[in-house]
Amino acid sequence: MTTPSVLVVGSVAYDDLEMPYGIFEDVLGGAAVYSSFASALFAKTALVGVVGEDFKPGDVKKLEERSIDVQGLERAAGKTFRWRGRYSKDLSSRETLETHLNVFAEFSPKVAPELRNPRYLLLGNIHPALQLGVLSQLEKPRFVAADTMNFWISGEPKLLNDVLGKIDLLLINDEEARELSGISNIKKAAADIRKRGPKHLIIKRGEHGALLFDDQGTFYVPGFPLEDVRDPTGAGDTFAGGLFGYLAAKDDGKNAPLPEHCLRRAMLFATASASFCVEDVGSARLEQVSRKDVVARTKQLLAMLDVGGTLALEA
Amino acid sequence: MTTPSVLVVGSVAYDDLEMPYGIFEDVLGGAAVYSSFASALFAKTALVGVVGEDFKPGDVKKLEERSIDVQGLERAAGKTFRWRGRYSKDLSSRETLETHLNVFAEFSPKVAPELRNPRYLLLGNIHPALQLGVLSQLEKPRFVAADTMNFWISGEPKLLNDVLGKIDLLLINDEEARELSGISNIKKAAADIRKRGPKHLIIKRGEHGALLFDDQGTFYVPGFPLEDVRDPTGAGDTFAGGLFGYLAAKDDGKNAPLPEHCLRRAMLFATASASFCVEDVGSARLEQVSRKDVVARTKQLLAMLDVGGTLALEA
Repeated sequence: MTTPSVLVVGSVAYDDLEMPYGIFEDVLGGAAVYSSFASALFAKTALVGVVGEDFKPGDVKKLEERSIDVQGLERAAGKTFRWRGRYSKDLSSRETLETHLNVFAEFSPKVAPELRNPRYLLLGNIHPALQLGVLSQLEKPRFVAADTMNFWISGEPKLLNDVLGKIDLLLINDEEARELSGISNIKKAAADIRKRGPKHLIIKRGEHGALLFDDQGTFYVPGFPLEDVRDPTGAGDTFAGGLFGYLAAKDDGKNAPLPEHCLRRAMLFATASASFCVEDVGSARLEQVSRKDVVARTKQLLAMLDVGGTLALEA
Repeated sequence: MTTPSVLVVGSVAYDDLEMPYGIFEDVLGGAAVYSSFASALFAKTALVGVVGEDFKPGDVKKLEERSIDVQGLERAAGKTFRWRGRYSKDLSSRETLETHLNVFAEFSPKVAPELRNPRYLLLGNIHPALQLGVLSQLEKPRFVAADTMNFWISGEPKLLNDVLGKIDLLLINDEEARELSGISNIKKAAADIRKRGPKHLIIKRGEHGALLFDDQGTFYVPGFPLEDVRDPTGAGDTFAGGLFGYLAAKDDGKNAPLPEHCLRRAMLFATASASFCVEDVGSARLEQVSRKDVVARTKQLLAMLDVGGTLALEA
C-alpha cells in the first residue's frame, strides 16, 4: 500500500439525529468520516480513528467503496463513540442530548509505518495532546491543519498553544476564535491567533460561508445557496476534507508554501463538498456524490464570485 | 438646476442612539440621509423627504456640502421624525425604545418638476402607498429600487404587491424575504418574490454581506472586515445609496436593462460605502469620507473575491 496524500485523524461515530422531520439512529458519522468521504473524492486518503465492537462491517465497506484507506481504523473492546442531538425546526441550531465517548475516551492514535509520510495532515477536533502525539509520529507533512473547540480552548490552553505552533492552518468558528484570542472583533482576533503559529486561519460560518485570513489578505467564500437542506451535521468536517482533497489533488510536489490563492480555490471546492453533505441525513449524500457533481457545483460557486470585468472606478 | 441622476425618497430623522460606550442624541439620520450621502459620492443626487421646524440649518448644510440637491426636502409644521434605540454590547442587535413619527406621519412626497426625470430612483422604506405615489409622479426611471419592512409586508400586502410589480430591485433582509414569500428557504423565497415583479432581489445580511438573485444567477458580497465598528445604524441605507451612486456613475445612457454583472460590481461599491458608515456614530464618517477612500476599499473587496486563476479541476 502506498503512502496516502491525505491523512485524516479524528472521531468515528454513530449519531442519533432528532430532526424536525423524523428521528434517525445509528447514523454513520464523526468528523474523520465526513472529512475522509470528501477528501477521497479527489485524493488518496487514509483515516485514523477508533471504533467499537458494534461497528458494522457495512460501514467499513462504505469507506472502502470510496477508496478510503482504513488500515488506521482501530477496533477496540467496547462501543463506538455515540452522539445524540436534536435540531431546531429551521435547522439553524441544535442541542446535544447525549454524548457517550465509549472507545473514544481511550483513543490514542497509533499511526502505522505505512501512513507516516502523508503530504497533507488533517487533525480533527480531538484532545490537543493527541494532535501533538500524531504529529510526533509523522515525517513533517507539507501542510497540516487542525480543528478544535471551546472545550479544549478553555481546558487545555497550553497544549493547544503547542499545537498552534506546529500547524499551517487552524479551522474554527467565530465563537471559538473569540474565546481563543479573548478578542471580540474577528479581524483582530484572527491577527492574534495567526501570531501564535498558523499562517492561515479559516473561520467557518455554516450557511454563511467561510473566511480565510493569511498573508495574501482576506478571502470570503459564501455558503452554496441550496433549495433543500436536510441535515447540517458534518458540514464543517466535510468542508475541511474537501479542502484537503483539493490541495492534495493539486499538489505540485514541492515542499514550499502553497501557491498563491491555492487555499482560496480549495475553499470553493470545500464549500461545494459541504453543500452535498447537508442535502441528506448523515453522510448518505456524500457516500454517493460523484467527483463530477462536486466539480460542477464548484464552478457554479466560482461564477457566484464573478463580477464580470473591472470596476472601472476612478477615485 | 439639472435633473438628478439619482432620486432618493425616504425618512430624514434625528436619532437618539444608546451605544455601549455612550449616549448620542439628536444624531442626523434616516434612510434618505444615509442613502444620499453614499450616492452623492459618485452621482448627482437629490433627496425627497420631510423635516420639522426643529431641523437644524447646520444639518441642511451637511447635505449641501456633499452636493446633495435638497430642494425636495420639505419643511413642515411640527417636529422631525425621531427614533431612539439601544444597541447590545457587541452591537449585533438593537431594540427600539421610542419612535415619534412627528411630521413623517403626514408625509406625502410631492416631487418638484425639476426632479421628475431621474435615471435611478431609490424608494426608501416608507408606506407602499407613498412609494406608488412617487412613482406616479415621475417619468419612468431607468432603474427603480425599493426597501420595505415587516410592518408593510403584513399590514399592506396588496399595495406592496403593486409596488413589486413596478420596481426593478427589492432590497430586504432574510426575515423580510421569508415573511413576504411565506417560504423559509431563502433560495426558494427569492424565486417566489422575483416572480411578483422585481427582476433583481438583494438580501441584506449586515456584517455577513449581501446576496443578489437575478437572471444572471446568484452573487454574494461579503461584509468588509473591519477592526472597529462603532455604530451599525444606517448601514443598509448606505449600502443602497452606494449601489445607486455606482449605477448612475456608470450609466451608459441607454434605457435597456443594466449591463451584465453591473449590479454585482455596484454591490462591491455599496459594501465599501457601508463599511465607512459603521466606523463612526450616525453619518459622521460618511459626511467626511472621500470618493478616493471608497474606491480604495472597493478594490480591496474585489481582491477578497480573487481566487487567482482557474480552478484547474477536471471531473
